[in-house]
Amino acid sequence: MMHIGIDMMGGDYAPLEAVKGLQTFLSTPDNNVIIHCIGNEEEIQPLFEQYQISSPQIKVIHAAEIIGYHEHPTKALKDKPQSSIAIGFQMLAGGELDAFISAGNTGAMLVGAMFSIKPIEGILRPTISTIVPKLNGDTGVLLDVGLNADCKPEQLNQFAILGNLYAKHILQIPEPKVALMNVGEEEGKGNLLAQATYPLLKENKHIHFVGNMEGRDMFLDKADVMVCDGFTGNILLKMAESVYDLTLKRGIQDAYFERFHYENYGGTPVLGVSKPVIIGHGISHAKAFKNMISLACKMVEHDICGKIAEEILK
Amino acid sequence: MMHIGIDMMGGDYAPLEAVKGLQTFLSTPDNNVIIHCIGNEEEIQPLFEQYQISSPQIKVIHAAEIIGYHEHPTKALKDKPQSSIAIGFQMLAGGELDAFISAGNTGAMLVGAMFSIKPIEGILRPTISTIVPKLNGDTGVLLDVGLNADCKPEQLNQFAILGNLYAKHILQIPEPKVALMNVGEEEGKGNLLAQATYPLLKENKHIHFVGNMEGRDMFLDKADVMVCDGFTGNILLKMAESVYDLTLKRGIQDAYFERFHYENYGGTPVLGVSKPVIIGHGISHAKAFKNMISLACKMVEHDICGKIAEEILK
Repeated sequence: MMHIGIDMMGGDYAPLEAVKGLQTFLSTPDNNVIIHCIGNEEEIQPLFEQYQISSPQIKVIHAAEIIGYHEHPTKALKDKPQSSIAIGFQMLAGGELDAFISAGNTGAMLVGAMFSIKPIEGILRPTISTIVPKLNGDTGVLLDVGLNADCKPEQLNQFAILGNLYAKHILQIPEPKVALMNVGEEEGKGNLLAQATYPLLKENKHIHFVGNMEGRDMFLDKADVMVCDGFTGNILLKMAESVYDLTLKRGIQDAYFERFHYENYGGTPVLGVSKPVIIGHGISHAKAFKNMISLACKMVEHDICGKIAEEILK
Repeated sequence: MMHIGIDMMGGDYAPLEAVKGLQTFLSTPDNNVIIHCIGNEEEIQPLFEQYQISSPQIKVIHAAEIIGYHEHPTKALKDKPQSSIAIGFQMLAGGELDAFISAGNTGAMLVGAMFSIKPIEGILRPTISTIVPKLNGDTGVLLDVGLNADCKPEQLNQFAILGNLYAKHILQIPEPKVALMNVGEEEGKGNLLAQATYPLLKENKHIHFVGNMEGRDMFLDKADVMVCDGFTGNILLKMAESVYDLTLKRGIQDAYFERFHYENYGGTPVLGVSKPVIIGHGISHAKAFKNMISLACKMVEHDICGKIAEEILK
């Protein structure tokens, strides 16, 4: 039985949308999971009644405080030990939870992930990734998407390993193709970082490196794992997300572009820390919450953190 | 009367598509221009006859050689003085041309621009830009898009000035909003380069700086001039171009996404060099050639290089 913690108070539409997401999740069979709903009991209980959520799989953990969007992450976590995010990390660090999810203050989630549960031994820098919908129906992963604005070649080289394990075990791609996001295909192209990273990736025995890729290859089947610094990755991610908005505003309904909608992938896992932590979009709705719970279960089930710990020491 | 040189041999579909583009261009009235068509006379003349191009505005300059796509730029320019690109730059440097256009070897075009006609005094690094179609119908400009993979803050600060003048005089935006492409809106966000560039842009008296922008703002009306390093810009440009391909492959016909097609903007001007140089996409068709000629005329007409020279010394 696995234990997943969810911050019921995080996100613009919390706790309502978190409750609705939970309801959808519980309607799927075979959930070998206990969900710890962390938040203000007085707000959550009436919603649970309204949405008829009463299952032995659900536990409510009262949190008297909330960390707001604009609070300083480190200060807020210190000053509000009774906040839903602080309690979540206490439970995760203490072993009561196997994974923790929140669509609340991103900075507080990152600080919690880095300092409450800590990076896996041997990891230079944890990273955050995003799912990339491929035109052929497949799914790729792009990382880093913003945790590390400035990177060293050795860090990118590790991100490749983390992304590779994620693609293999979570996206179920048997032998993921790993590429370096760059400005040209030939070896030697790129900025100083990309030029210095290429030979490391080429020599990296943990991955199947297919060389450089360009911006135009992102949605094609050139690579399953796309590695870049967090500055480039964050701008690419946000631009790709905006493409979905553009299609909506133009009245275009298309099954492929629908996959660009963040709700489909739910949240961003922090990779390289000792337990699964998933950070949701502030504007998460029910579907995003449901998908974040599913992703957390999958990450625990496949012991992705254990596999990273093992691989990184090889 | 202005003199525009065009490399008839550059591009995958040259000289045929260049001839067709020329034909369309000549059909528009009031062209106060002489077009110098540089290329293999034996190939061009029959096409001119076929497409009934015989105008006092057209001069053919024979070029016995061609620089191929995969040739080393500097070496090719040196070894092939009779190539269409080499002749174009000789004529540009010698004052016989006011602007030069080619869809051929990009590297050779850049080397020619940097060493035959040279950067404008005071320019740290020339830059290349791309047009960005805005959802509201406006057009923005993103730079650098690949000439400078690694940048210094002072260079980005100058790109802002170049982009501002381009937006003002070529895109006819009276007071362009200039923004720094970044990972967050607040001052202090970003990688080391963006953090160091922000205060320079804030103090830059040549521009109307509106702060940081994110990837999601690229197609919205947040900014008219979007400044970033050439690594980020190139990946963004190629990704945006691929969005048009995605819509095509999904069978989507939409007037807005149609604007993402490179043929509409024709080519990329090199900004910061002493005369207008326009580099076309290798896969340019007639429309792209026609638009490149129009853009070259506009750049000469508005004396964009003169305005840059004036502004940069202020």
